[in-house]
Amino acid sequence: MQTVTLYLDYLCPFAWRGLELIHVVAPQLGLELELRHYSLEQGNHPENQGLLQSAPVWKLAEQPLEGPKSLRAFLASHAARQQGKAAHLRFALELFRLRHQDRRPLGDDQTFVEAVARAGLDLERFMADLEDEENRRLELARDLEQAGELGVFGTPTFVLPSGDAAYFRFSELTTEPELAVPLWELFTAVLHNGAHIETIKRPRK
Amino acid sequence: MQTVTLYLDYLCPFAWRGLELIHVVAPQLGLELELRHYSLEQGNHPENQGLLQSAPVWKLAEQPLEGPKSLRAFLASHAARQQGKAAHLRFALELFRLRHQDRRPLGDDQTFVEAVARAGLDLERFMADLEDEENRRLELARDLEQAGELGVFGTPTFVLPSGDAAYFRFSELTTEPELAVPLWELFTAVLHNGAHIETIKRPRK
Repeated sequence: MQTVTLYLDYLCPFAWRGLELIHVVAPQLGLELELRHYSLEQGNHPENQGLLQSAPVWKLAEQPLEGPKSLRAFLASHAARQQGKAAHLRFALELFRLRHQDRRPLGDDQTFVEAVARAGLDLERFMADLEDEENRRLELARDLEQAGELGVFGTPTFVLPSGDAAYFRFSELTTEPELAVPLWELFTAVLHNGAHIETIKRPRK
Repeated sequence: MQTVTLYLDYLCPFAWRGLELIHVVAPQLGLELELRHYSLEQGNHPENQGLLQSAPVWKLAEQPLEGPKSLRAFLASHAARQQGKAAHLRFALELFRLRHQDRRPLGDDQTFVEAVARAGLDLERFMADLEDEENRRLELARDLEQAGELGVFGTPTFVLPSGDAAYFRFSELTTEPELAVPLWELFTAVLHNGAHIETIKRPRK
């Protein structure tokens, strides 16, 4: 089975749409999905300006829990990952929907508990894994390092089975398979075209 | 006939590839091509940092001739435009090729004279129009204002007959019609897709 890796940040509504897209497309095209994390707060932090994404000085995984808005969501995501890839994907989808559809606060325990319930995860195990903060921080640090090595600068960024990778931003949620599959195929056609397309980007006024 | 507008800067090798592409594609698809100018030196100028593209304080068209690298090429481009759209397109293609294929200096009279010769323009008229610097500067200022209003931030930027616009960067010159037409159709399919794709961009390490 071929694997698509998706870098996401729960803060980002475009990452939410990207995850909904690949969630619909993956079973249709026989793709396995691997979720990884990239942090917009780290990538855009003033102390990291002008530095390579692979060499930040301000690191999210080392910050206090009360600080950055995204840290607890990333740690919760890693806690969910302990219950397997499929559970992790369901949790990520539900956490994104709670944040970007239902406008719930991202870092609250109550939001996590609801995502766990909707996704059908084991709550007791989830809470124990979330409390094992040191290991969750180590896992997050590894994810963010890998994103940095790849040069990820925004979410969603997809890495295709071919190794081609790109940030993919679209504003209309697309979850009907008859629209989602062609949208995904358009994206992959851009990345696989022989002209080596590097960027397509609309101007913003 | 439907019109595609292309914003270009002679400094930019991606704009060169973009022009070569649409030059091949336009007759195949019955498109008319309109060339406009966007200035990277103006857009990226330190004095314009943080300002809207539509409200620069450092304006290329007001700079001395000896200053910015691209100014004389833009004025020459406007001089060529006096001989009609087709002549302008041929001149632009030849000036791009001289700069990016033959590595000739961009702002030299000698380079302009050679572009005029290769493109089959009237040299005497071209020189007279180039010497009418005040009008060429006014035309350039208008082009750069229009680019600013559109939010153009790089070249090549194409405006499609639908009104959709995007920066389109690819690194492999694509001029064989059987590759160029599908590449163009891929680009337009991205801009016309119902998901409203805003950006596809590869990370750079």
